[in-house]
Amino acid sequence: MFKAIVSADTLRTTLDSVSVLVDECKIHLNEEGLAIRAVDPANVGMVDLELDAAAFESYEADGGLIGVSLARLEDIAGMADAGQLVQLELDEETRKLHIQIDGLEYTLALIDPDSIRQEPDLPDLDLPARIVIEGADIDRAVRAADMVSDHIALGVDEGDEQFYVDAEGDTDDVHLELGRADLIDLEAGDAHSLFSLDYLKDMNKAIPKDGEVAVDLGEEFPVKMHFEIAEGLGQVTFMLAPRIQSE
Amino acid sequence: MFKAIVSADTLRTTLDSVSVLVDECKIHLNEEGLAIRAVDPANVGMVDLELDAAAFESYEADGGLIGVSLARLEDIAGMADAGQLVQLELDEETRKLHIQIDGLEYTLALIDPDSIRQEPDLPDLDLPARIVIEGADIDRAVRAADMVSDHIALGVDEGDEQFYVDAEGDTDDVHLELGRADLIDLEAGDAHSLFSLDYLKDMNKAIPKDGEVAVDLGEEFPVKMHFEIAEGLGQVTFMLAPRIQSE
Amino acid sequence: MFKAIVSADTLRTTLDSVSVLVDECKIHLNEEGLAIRAVDPANVGMVDLELDAAAFESYEADGGLIGVSLARLEDIAGMADAGQLVQLELDEETRKLHIQIDGLEYTLALIDPDSIRQEPDLPDLDLPARIVIEGADIDRAVRAADMVSDHIALGVDEGDEQFYVDAEGDTDDVHLELGRADLIDLEAGDAHSLFSLDYLKDMNKAIPKDGEVAVDLGEEFPVKMHFEIAEGLGQVTFMLAPRIQSE
Repeated sequence: MFKAIVSADTLRTTLDSVSVLVDECKIHLNEEGLAIRAVDPANVGMVDLELDAAAFESYEADGGLIGVSLARLEDIAGMADAGQLVQLELDEETRKLHIQIDGLEYTLALIDPDSIRQEPDLPDLDLPARIVIEGADIDRAVRAADMVSDHIALGVDEGDEQFYVDAEGDTDDVHLELGRADLIDLEAGDAHSLFSLDYLKDMNKAIPKDGEVAVDLGEEFPVKMHFEIAEGLGQVTFMLAPRIQSE
Repeated sequence: MFKAIVSADTLRTTLDSVSVLVDECKIHLNEEGLAIRAVDPANVGMVDLELDAAAFESYEADGGLIGVSLARLEDIAGMADAGQLVQLELDEETRKLHIQIDGLEYTLALIDPDSIRQEPDLPDLDLPARIVIEGADIDRAVRAADMVSDHIALGVDEGDEQFYVDAEGDTDDVHLELGRADLIDLEAGDAHSLFSLDYLKDMNKAIPKDGEVAVDLGEEFPVKMHFEIAEGLGQVTFMLAPRIQSE
Repeated sequence: MFKAIVSADTLRTTLDSVSVLVDECKIHLNEEGLAIRAVDPANVGMVDLELDAAAFESYEADGGLIGVSLARLEDIAGMADAGQLVQLELDEETRKLHIQIDGLEYTLALIDPDSIRQEPDLPDLDLPARIVIEGADIDRAVRAADMVSDHIALGVDEGDEQFYVDAEGDTDDVHLELGRADLIDLEAGDAHSLFSLDYLKDMNKAIPKDGEVAVDLGEEFPVKMHFEIAEGLGQVTFMLAPRIQSE
């Protein structure tokens, strides 16, 4: 069984964090909250999301698994005003999700979870560098890099205690350096990896501009980005595989 | 003769109520105000509009008839700021309408009324149910139904004293029930009819979200929707023919 | 050498005044400020712009000449917030412009000035009429004319002391008359010329709606429009060649 009430804002933020990578996903309806893991079709970008039961107005679940179309659910959540509550209830018989918003009842056909791409294991990497940075700074770096290139290098210089972003275009370059004073936190360690800007742009859409993001980096290793949603009651991790350096 | 001054807001609201159904229309310039009746090319949706002389800053007319392109008139009215006055004067000789907005003079060629589709008679139906509802609730129902289907059922359950909206898609459904407490008024009588959502979406664009709409319904009968414009000095009626139920 | 700091607003306004006519331009880095002159590929519209050194937070230059892509520079300037400062520094060796916005460094490859269309001489015309008008009134006239035609006549009637705008379409006409009381200033002299609306629409985009524009007109002569940018520390002149009257 699954029966929950959640604010439209929290529901939308949750769905947006996953829909930047995939169109459909499996949602684990655990007793302690929702859990979603998904990887994009090219196996380059992954998301791992948990939304605690406490992020809901009310929440009851006993460990089921459902498959959903994210675009459909986002459309429905979009019908609600910012502060409005959305009521979700699973009909186990018909495998439909009943969604109520202020008298309006939407019956959503679920997708067979077995027909959805398998959930990835997010590898437990021991990455040498971690920075904690404002979401707005990631946004700025991604938008600037996008003006000149389709890939972006992220790195940490252990000696200089600098986090840097590099994008090299055919004629123009973009460079951003943030020292300890510009960052919320820095655990220095040499790191440098090249990433596809398309993926980072998609992930950037879901990263709250006014929140903190912890970024783990290595030498030609994936980047992991952790941030909170739902006032700390939800946790999202994005992982992005590096591109092979062309030099 | 025809000579009038009207606020840009009132003019725009008037034109928008008709342009959702047709591109051109005849305007009756009666002594007591303007009158427009029009039906869409498929004979499915009709509009009947009256704008009293009192809705104008000044108004003089003696019963003429003109044909206009609504898009042209809307473009011109769109040049004015919200509070600005629009001066209209018919030149009987040239069959042109002179429109002045703060020194700017626009000369609009009229259309021969005989070349415009004939005006419909809005049948005087004796419909068993009437609800009075907020325009915002119609908007909500139409937008929700649009997510799943291209048609929508509107009905009243006399016994339960409920107005309901149903839209059934291939996989998902939308249902909305509003009881006496959710409505401004309810005259219960059994009613249920299916309508094309495309037409209702167009009509919805012209319905003021913050105003009242009186909706008359029957069993497989047209729906009539009445609302006021121009602070009560204008009356609009939309009529929409039902679709054949496919069950 | 060239090294300057300027507010993002001032930089954007400057670039926009030129980019409405051309994609690339030469910028003269004089000791007393920047100077740009450019003509569109069809030799119909010209711009002459000067931005005084005093419009910058700091400014050092010794008479160099650079060629730039306006779209690129506008994109970069668009990364800054309204109040933010943009630091510009020319690297003479590499012929690149280093642009810094709050830690973000952009390296822009310059264009060989010899590859950019030659700068025009703006002829020193002795035009018989000058009006000074609000930018907002030019905007209104251009938008109204655009509804009916692709050309626009601007003129002054010396006897009536009127500035007028005429646009004649296939069926509809637009006419605007502004007398001495509606204008900021009027030096009457008979003038009447026809212009391409496409060019005037582009120039209108760069004309500040809340500022004054001095418009010089003659009989079948080019129009000159002068306005200030950067709080009076920059001057822009647009010149537009007339179209042959088709009557």
